[in-house]
Amino acid sequence: MAVAQDWQYRVNYLVPEGRKLPSGIFRYAAAIEYDGSGYCGWQRQRHCTGVQEVVEKALSAVADEPVKVACAGRTDTGVHATAQIIHFDSRAMRSSRNWMLGSNANMPRNVRCHWAEKMPDNFHARFSAHSRTYRYLVLNTSSRPALLRQGLAWEGANISLPAMNEAVAALIGEHDFSSFRGAGCQSATPWRSIHYIDIFRLNDIVVFEIRANAFLLHMVRNIMGALLAVGRGEHSPQWLGQLLALRDRSKAGVTAPAQGLYLVRVAYPSEFAIPVFKPGPCFVGRDLYDVIHPSRPGGFSTKN
Amino acid sequence: MAVAQDWQYRVNYLVPEGRKLPSGIFRYAAAIEYDGSGYCGWQRQRHCTGVQEVVEKALSAVADEPVKVACAGRTDTGVHATAQIIHFDSRAMRSSRNWMLGSNANMPRNVRCHWAEKMPDNFHARFSAHSRTYRYLVLNTSSRPALLRQGLAWEGANISLPAMNEAVAALIGEHDFSSFRGAGCQSATPWRSIHYIDIFRLNDIVVFEIRANAFLLHMVRNIMGALLAVGRGEHSPQWLGQLLALRDRSKAGVTAPAQGLYLVRVAYPSEFAIPVFKPGPCFVGRDLYDVIHPSRPGGFSTKN
Repeated sequence: MAVAQDWQYRVNYLVPEGRKLPSGIFRYAAAIEYDGSGYCGWQRQRHCTGVQEVVEKALSAVADEPVKVACAGRTDTGVHATAQIIHFDSRAMRSSRNWMLGSNANMPRNVRCHWAEKMPDNFHARFSAHSRTYRYLVLNTSSRPALLRQGLAWEGANISLPAMNEAVAALIGEHDFSSFRGAGCQSATPWRSIHYIDIFRLNDIVVFEIRANAFLLHMVRNIMGALLAVGRGEHSPQWLGQLLALRDRSKAGVTAPAQGLYLVRVAYPSEFAIPVFKPGPCFVGRDLYDVIHPSRPGGFSTKN
Repeated sequence: MAVAQDWQYRVNYLVPEGRKLPSGIFRYAAAIEYDGSGYCGWQRQRHCTGVQEVVEKALSAVADEPVKVACAGRTDTGVHATAQIIHFDSRAMRSSRNWMLGSNANMPRNVRCHWAEKMPDNFHARFSAHSRTYRYLVLNTSSRPALLRQGLAWEGANISLPAMNEAVAALIGEHDFSSFRGAGCQSATPWRSIHYIDIFRLNDIVVFEIRANAFLLHMVRNIMGALLAVGRGEHSPQWLGQLLALRDRSKAGVTAPAQGLYLVRVAYPSEFAIPVFKPGPCFVGRDLYDVIHPSRPGGFSTKN
């Protein structure tokens, strides 16, 4: 195997195969749950607080030195996560239990650390990830809810699940998703591979579950915006495929609101032995589609 | 039938059988859902806002005159309701739709009106009610949640549902509930009649459902505090019956936190034709115990 000759260590950067972290530096990973309603998304912002800031402050207190973290997927303002995966480098040697309890003691209640583990040197929360799974939750009732309103989108019209399931078939697989790409997206390419989409009802809540190798800016919410228009009968199920083919964001629908969106799982190669919990959020009592349908479309075979 | 001879109309007071509201005054009822986390309970308070204040302000705007409301059950600080029932007298003639849309337009998003109807003169939200049903929700996971933390209590230890179900049997029926009565309770009597208690798991959430003719101050939360101690194995299932017999609040356990508690239904005689919706909250996908077990203990026969 080729070894990167010119590689130099930088905090949190990917460690190439055959290279190691400098002696005395350890790489840790952790799973972070957060209620996005109080934050300007994951990333540090000048005008208001990102979840990252809160997590770094807490881990720095545990490490007794400044800690910077890298995440698997930067979520937008108001978007939630049940298991955002992060990694961070530190000279501090702490047990899993101490990282977890110590960080939780130093974070507000709307951000929680569910586990923390020492990782192999070449683990990277973003670059090691096989896939990301999001759930989008829409309360489908005649009147708006007062309860859980920061944790659900709401749709007053009856929405048709068969029409929505028919519509999303065109999105499965590898495509240019320019039609569903938010303005300001910094990705080098509009190509992404959607492994599966599963839509089901949980009482009055419609759950839209989507897994892809990665997502463009606002991609899930832009797909949801168009999909809800199909669900309401404003467009035929063929519309999503047509939009996709246009590769033009200006032709698609609105961006669905952030409060319905949850990052629920990031999958890694099994060698990293990332702990896997129920995808959640806690009131969604169904495991992921690939566990229910092991031979699902998309042909993606790693389960966690 | 005897007619009250000395009766005089007062706003929102019970209109005795055989009497009527003064001409030009109408009695309306409404169902109010609220997220209690932002409020000092239902009732108006000097130091912070009660839900009542918000509702009265909105209805006054619709009526174009001051409106006062009476409720079925005054909830504490932080306690939620999916269908608090209220009534109010007004000279304003408005359609159900106008009361509902108008009040919602004038209330913050954490309080919603789900319906409003003109009622018979002798309807009274509190005195006409047969029963109140509450649900108490406990997330039973090893680590605290970041999401929905204002809408669930949390218990980190494994709790035993069989032990809890065994424990509550002693509470069913008519009893002196002094052991579970909060200090400051203004009720004339500590006697209440519990119609049923049902405990079930919904994924990681344990739902405790209780219906009684009425409740004492903090009664559900005080029962829950003791019951969770039984669930954790700190006391035998017999403890609840022993506590009940002592009629002494100082012997019982802690008061369980407010954020897990929801007023989910108030039942009235069928002549009032009160609209009945799913008890909720929206993520609890199970109808009430009496719908599942029509021949339930307690012998209470009216279904809504």
